[in-house]
Amino acid sequence: MTQAIANQTKTNATFRALKCKECGAEYELQAMHVCEYCFGPLEVAYDYTALRETVTRESIQKGPHSIWRYRPFLPVATDNPIDVGTGLTPLVRANRLARRLGLKKLYIKNDAVNMPTLSFKDRVVSVALTRARELGFTTVSCASTGNLANSTAAIAAHAGLDCCVFIPADLEAGKVLGTLIYSPTVMAVQGNYDQVNRLCSEVANTYGWGFVNINLRPYYSEGSKTLGYEVAEQLGWELPDHVVAPLASGSLFTKIYKGFQEFTEVGLVEGKHVRFSGAQADGCSPIAQAYRENRDFIKPVKPSTIAKSIAIGNPADGVYALDIARKTNGNIESVSDPEIIEGIKLLAETEGIFTETAGGTTIAVLKKLVEAGKIDPEETTVAYITGNGLKTQEAVQGYAGEPLTIEPKLDSFERALERSRTLERLDWQQVLV
Amino acid sequence: MTQAIANQTKTNATFRALKCKECGAEYELQAMHVCEYCFGPLEVAYDYTALRETVTRESIQKGPHSIWRYRPFLPVATDNPIDVGTGLTPLVRANRLARRLGLKKLYIKNDAVNMPTLSFKDRVVSVALTRARELGFTTVSCASTGNLANSTAAIAAHAGLDCCVFIPADLEAGKVLGTLIYSPTVMAVQGNYDQVNRLCSEVANTYGWGFVNINLRPYYSEGSKTLGYEVAEQLGWELPDHVVAPLASGSLFTKIYKGFQEFTEVGLVEGKHVRFSGAQADGCSPIAQAYRENRDFIKPVKPSTIAKSIAIGNPADGVYALDIARKTNGNIESVSDPEIIEGIKLLAETEGIFTETAGGTTIAVLKKLVEAGKIDPEETTVAYITGNGLKTQEAVQGYAGEPLTIEPKLDSFERALERSRTLERLDWQQVLV
Ligand SMILES: [Zn+2]
Ligand SMILES: [Zn+2]
Repeated sequence: MTQAIANQTKTNATFRALKCKECGAEYELQAMHVCEYCFGPLEVAYDYTALRETVTRESIQKGPHSIWRYRPFLPVATDNPIDVGTGLTPLVRANRLARRLGLKKLYIKNDAVNMPTLSFKDRVVSVALTRARELGFTTVSCASTGNLANSTAAIAAHAGLDCCVFIPADLEAGKVLGTLIYSPTVMAVQGNYDQVNRLCSEVANTYGWGFVNINLRPYYSEGSKTLGYEVAEQLGWELPDHVVAPLASGSLFTKIYKGFQEFTEVGLVEGKHVRFSGAQADGCSPIAQAYRENRDFIKPVKPSTIAKSIAIGNPADGVYALDIARKTNGNIESVSDPEIIEGIKLLAETEGIFTETAGGTTIAVLKKLVEAGKIDPEETTVAYITGNGLKTQEAVQGYAGEPLTIEPKLDSFERALERSRTLERLDWQQVLV
Repeated sequence: MTQAIANQTKTNATFRALKCKECGAEYELQAMHVCEYCFGPLEVAYDYTALRETVTRESIQKGPHSIWRYRPFLPVATDNPIDVGTGLTPLVRANRLARRLGLKKLYIKNDAVNMPTLSFKDRVVSVALTRARELGFTTVSCASTGNLANSTAAIAAHAGLDCCVFIPADLEAGKVLGTLIYSPTVMAVQGNYDQVNRLCSEVANTYGWGFVNINLRPYYSEGSKTLGYEVAEQLGWELPDHVVAPLASGSLFTKIYKGFQEFTEVGLVEGKHVRFSGAQADGCSPIAQAYRENRDFIKPVKPSTIAKSIAIGNPADGVYALDIARKTNGNIESVSDPEIIEGIKLLAETEGIFTETAGGTTIAVLKKLVEAGKIDPEETTVAYITGNGLKTQEAVQGYAGEPLTIEPKLDSFERALERSRTLERLDWQQVLV
């Protein structure tokens, strides 16, 4: 092990230990993620008394227009984090989609336009690489279903860190190119994400590298809390009634929950019962299956779905996500691949937001829950869109229609327009029949 | 003509007329773009006295985190514009790229992450569609090389406007899909952009549609001024010494210039001599050719380059761009397609920003100008990146390297790592030879 631990500027740090989520054992703030006693996952613990005394709505609003306005709630000591504008993505009031679904007050938290690589992973990677630098790592790495590789490679390039990423060999072309372009070392592993992840655990134990989602995972995952903080701030320092978010490892879901809890705990928002609903693809729905079957444990599955970025067959935080959905009176639902494509198209044509398959899954589950009466039309609902559709173009190619090909002449245009209007009328007649 | 002109709320409007750039004739604020006397282009004129009296740095900073914080400088009367978070993209201090090029203070204005569709076109379209709605249009349209179609379709979808876009039939797949997904009518014209544009002028004269870059062009193009305002504000209310921006129609370039002029005129920044340099692709460089040959007029060309989004053979504002480059002691340069690809890779590996071919052109020209001594290392330089690389993946496929394919086993990983390090050493030896 060549892992180095740099000196922390203790003055600004409000995070105080790594703590086991199962047995409560505490550890120093190093690069580790598993409890040595019970093998439970480690989480960062904070000094909430200090936070309550120092952080105000005003102090946050004076901060940068990025996740780093919430720095006291994030596990880094530096005042000079890697800030490439990540976070504070729009919370879009989605009136047209709300009308189509029959909701009154729907918002889209739009991380499809997160910076720099157009997914929520930029949040967790910004935190992980800032922490990696503090801990003295010079090479950073990850096991990824695509978005994480894009983000790690891009932010490492900006920060001048060496980078080696591991991806499944069958990834979408856009995600591979969107990693290679930053010139990291890219290992395409012939296996699914769970196999990639196992290999990376071995490498993490052997090499002195900072794996953002393995040995740096406790720091990394805290970045997702900002998706909770931002929604609270953007709603005018109030919590919503219901959130719908995709479930991959389950981490995102649990961290949004933690974000709401922390803001309540330190008095930035009033406490509120927020319902948490999770979205999976039928082709990889181990958490939804456990929910349906009223199980407390997750049976790993072999993923087979177009929603590759959330296709984690053995989700590390699945049981915690399950617990949150149950205790908040939420739901966990799954949808088919065709429903996912319909979800992508529905969001695009009503709100002008082009999301990837994970976002299509969230919208399709949102629709399903509303139709089943499991979201009340009166609830202020927030759906989390976590990635951009330009990275999974394969998924919708052939389902988004075709252009009308014309010659550069007015009469050719007019014939095509007439044709398309006739088709539209036929469409409507079919609807009416 | 079914064009309707809605009542304006005169109280908030600081724009007062359309004015011919050639003969100075003034017109009412309708949907028109050509002078009836001299056929010169029309531009929006403002009441700068009113602006000087009402707009301050503080009033701007209190505004929304989008282009609409500059609303008094934009040609819309409403206080409720179409705001999907467009603008205020990061101004990235590019230290690693600066070192590679030999500059001291380089910034990237990163519209590759502009919202919602990842190009600067979201700025001009947000303005044009807000104005279109004010003028009573219910169908909006455009002639596009891709990015504009993405943006018009997305923002029209969000605003609930009918939309019909015209693109050349040979456009990159990502740009076609990135339009179709929003369900507009898409006309794929068998011809180049200049032919598409001519057809659209005919349609605009016949149908009562709002073509953002034809009959709404005077309003539309004003949106690009925000690229000037934002850089000034983000530099702490100072102007840079040198800007490098791509030249397509030339409009963007002239409007950044206008933005700087206006901020100086109303006292928001101190006056400064800013040098303006323009970037074109060799395969479509009518403005660079005129610059080189010391001509005052543009000879139209037939485009043939991978940089399709800036491949306008007959640029409407070319002569104005030419004039600005000359009078500010800037330059206009062009680069080859291989240099454009190298530019894309250089920006990605140094700064973690993946841009499209237009951005690659800008970076390659920036490099060329520095190498030729035409940018002083001491100058504070801003390079404008106008679009995202995920939309023109074809351009770099095959040039960004390949992943190392491995089995999900530690020894397979180690062999691949050893192989890649050997290759790297060989690369370095070649550099040293
Ligand atoms: Zn434990
Ligand atoms: Zn005139």
